[in-house]
Amino acid sequence: MRINGERLISSIRAMGSVGFNPETGGRTRLALTDEDKAGRDLLCRWMRDEGLEVKIDEIGNIFGIREGSDPSELPVMMGSHIDTVRDAGMFDGVYGVLGGLEVIRTLNENEVTPKSSLVVAAFTNEEGARFQPDMMGSLYYARKVELGELLSSRDDSGITVGEELDRIGYGGAYSTPVGCYLELHVEQGPRLHAEGVSIGIVEGVQGLAWWTGEYYGESNHAGSTPMEMRKDTLLAVAELALEAEKLALSLGRGSVATMGRIAPRPDIINIVPGKCSFTLDFRQFDGELFEEGKREVEKLIVSCAARRGLKYCFKKAAEAAPVIFDRGMVELVGSRAAFLGLDSMKMISGASHDAQFLSSFCPTVMIFVPSVGGRSHCPEEWTDVKDLENGCNVLLHSVLELV
Amino acid sequence: MRINGERLISSIRAMGSVGFNPETGGRTRLALTDEDKAGRDLLCRWMRDEGLEVKIDEIGNIFGIREGSDPSELPVMMGSHIDTVRDAGMFDGVYGVLGGLEVIRTLNENEVTPKSSLVVAAFTNEEGARFQPDMMGSLYYARKVELGELLSSRDDSGITVGEELDRIGYGGAYSTPVGCYLELHVEQGPRLHAEGVSIGIVEGVQGLAWWTGEYYGESNHAGSTPMEMRKDTLLAVAELALEAEKLALSLGRGSVATMGRIAPRPDIINIVPGKCSFTLDFRQFDGELFEEGKREVEKLIVSCAARRGLKYCFKKAAEAAPVIFDRGMVELVGSRAAFLGLDSMKMISGASHDAQFLSSFCPTVMIFVPSVGGRSHCPEEWTDVKDLENGCNVLLHSVLELV
Repeated sequence: MRINGERLISSIRAMGSVGFNPETGGRTRLALTDEDKAGRDLLCRWMRDEGLEVKIDEIGNIFGIREGSDPSELPVMMGSHIDTVRDAGMFDGVYGVLGGLEVIRTLNENEVTPKSSLVVAAFTNEEGARFQPDMMGSLYYARKVELGELLSSRDDSGITVGEELDRIGYGGAYSTPVGCYLELHVEQGPRLHAEGVSIGIVEGVQGLAWWTGEYYGESNHAGSTPMEMRKDTLLAVAELALEAEKLALSLGRGSVATMGRIAPRPDIINIVPGKCSFTLDFRQFDGELFEEGKREVEKLIVSCAARRGLKYCFKKAAEAAPVIFDRGMVELVGSRAAFLGLDSMKMISGASHDAQFLSSFCPTVMIFVPSVGGRSHCPEEWTDVKDLENGCNVLLHSVLELV
Repeated sequence: MRINGERLISSIRAMGSVGFNPETGGRTRLALTDEDKAGRDLLCRWMRDEGLEVKIDEIGNIFGIREGSDPSELPVMMGSHIDTVRDAGMFDGVYGVLGGLEVIRTLNENEVTPKSSLVVAAFTNEEGARFQPDMMGSLYYARKVELGELLSSRDDSGITVGEELDRIGYGGAYSTPVGCYLELHVEQGPRLHAEGVSIGIVEGVQGLAWWTGEYYGESNHAGSTPMEMRKDTLLAVAELALEAEKLALSLGRGSVATMGRIAPRPDIINIVPGKCSFTLDFRQFDGELFEEGKREVEKLIVSCAARRGLKYCFKKAAEAAPVIFDRGMVELVGSRAAFLGLDSMKMISGASHDAQFLSSFCPTVMIFVPSVGGRSHCPEEWTDVKDLENGCNVLLHSVLELV
């Protein structure tokens, strides 16, 4: 049995036209906007067309359910999200949801009714581009956070999640149980494409720690303040950025450290910056090395300030421990890729995904396909049709083993 | 003969109350705003109270003229500016203008009428905080730029200099010639205060070169992009900032290099910055070393990009050659400081001043007094009353030698 690659890509293209901006070449379906609603409406229509029962829960997660023959079996869930960042590509999230729908379509076509129910899930606000926290739908589904807290999260203009769910008609009351979860996703990194491998079998998600901080020195005139009398915060943050890079390289084993933001003040061409804020992002899969890396990053924040006699403050802005996916699910996906004659490699996800919350209460795995050049969260995000088809076939055959 | 320190500081305080913001402790008289007009009105009233003839030229420069006994003698001009940056201290610019007025008041009090006329000048828009270019009034007075070009300069909301001059009633038609120029100013740097010296005799102004540039790499996911596959522009700009610091230290002889601005894009905590813009400011007084430094800075901009395989663009955003003040004027000020029993040191101005344009066509000198902690362009800017008084007495006695 094989999925229909043409049908899959044509659905992805149709979804990709919702919120499309011809000027940028990207589409924008920020969570719970009119564009997100249009995407949800399209998905729900497709689900009903395939005979699925559509349930919406309190946070707006969409579940399309295909009943199995044995009601005592827990459902096998496939899914991801259909909200996007601003000017996104077509695949991030959408591939996992429509890949699941394509598996359903294939089973319908082949008139296969397994014992277990099958569920296609689209989780609300995975991206966090409009409302925080990100991965909101799966966070709620895993009961990690109280509903009220999530419903009262506000966007930049003060509108809450609860108000928007009501407005677009996606505040529901019905959920569904889950036995195991599979999430098909584009890698969003360069590895598979660079190494020419078709399938990534994801063993887990890196631990992540974010810091925000600021250094305090003295704003002085760039012309009249001798070099040796300065307390230049930009230079200290520059050293921190470079030390963090060195740290990640010396820790190795896939450690990554990134300074994504730096903002000197007063931000004037001829003033020595007296303040400079920054962010740091550190990730590592191995639990012990993750702990060591976090300690070292915090030491660097302190030592780079101290070296130039600066004051500082910083705080941990986010932290998520490494997630290890179910060994049996990982082996299953590997065997199905081999069965289909596809080359695969085990890998760690550097990005966060809904799967990490699902994995806290049911056997979970992710299947990655190559992202051309590793690009993602931009209009240039691309995955070849053949790779989309291969990944979806691995999903299909993994599901067939689980039902 | 001595100036009246109490009278001087009380005038400075009165001017410092115009545009004062009690919340920040600073005052804001951006060029040609209502606050600048209020400051101008106050200055003109004080000038007329001392019997000065007030002339306003086409760019709004204010000249208060005290006629000498010999019309064939060229005037001795004292001055600076009364516009400010946002939330400025009381002294920058104002000290030079009101110091000149205090000299006039002292001569009036002592009924001294020298052969030469005396002029107190307040040049328009020295700071450049609202309209570019900065030092606009002295630039025009020295006929370095066409009037029309300056009048059509626009602020951020699109209003022109010409419109604002008309609106506040300071677009005039009368100028005055000059024989020599003396500008009293707070140092705006830490040297005099740190070394405990009362008077700085300014031999000239450092050459200045400004660059703006941008590096282009790849925006990638901070979690899923291995360190060795990144093209991180923030790290390359961080290296450039630190290399520029090293360069200034190794060139020595007062070289200063500053990165005042750095702006990564997309400026998101978990995205490797694919673009990063920056500014550089380099200054040196010695002409040859200035040329060498400029060449080296541009080499660094290129090499820091190349080391990480980045594309780049940059341009020289401003350049001013070193300015050497008249030797005779410098010696005169030194001898008058000694005559008054004040310790003095020769120094170079790191900041730009109206004096540098005046010096292109008349003998010019500046007199500096200590800035506590070198602070300037901020509410904390401070100079002790005794130092203000000393500097103004050096101005008085230098002027007495010139008339």
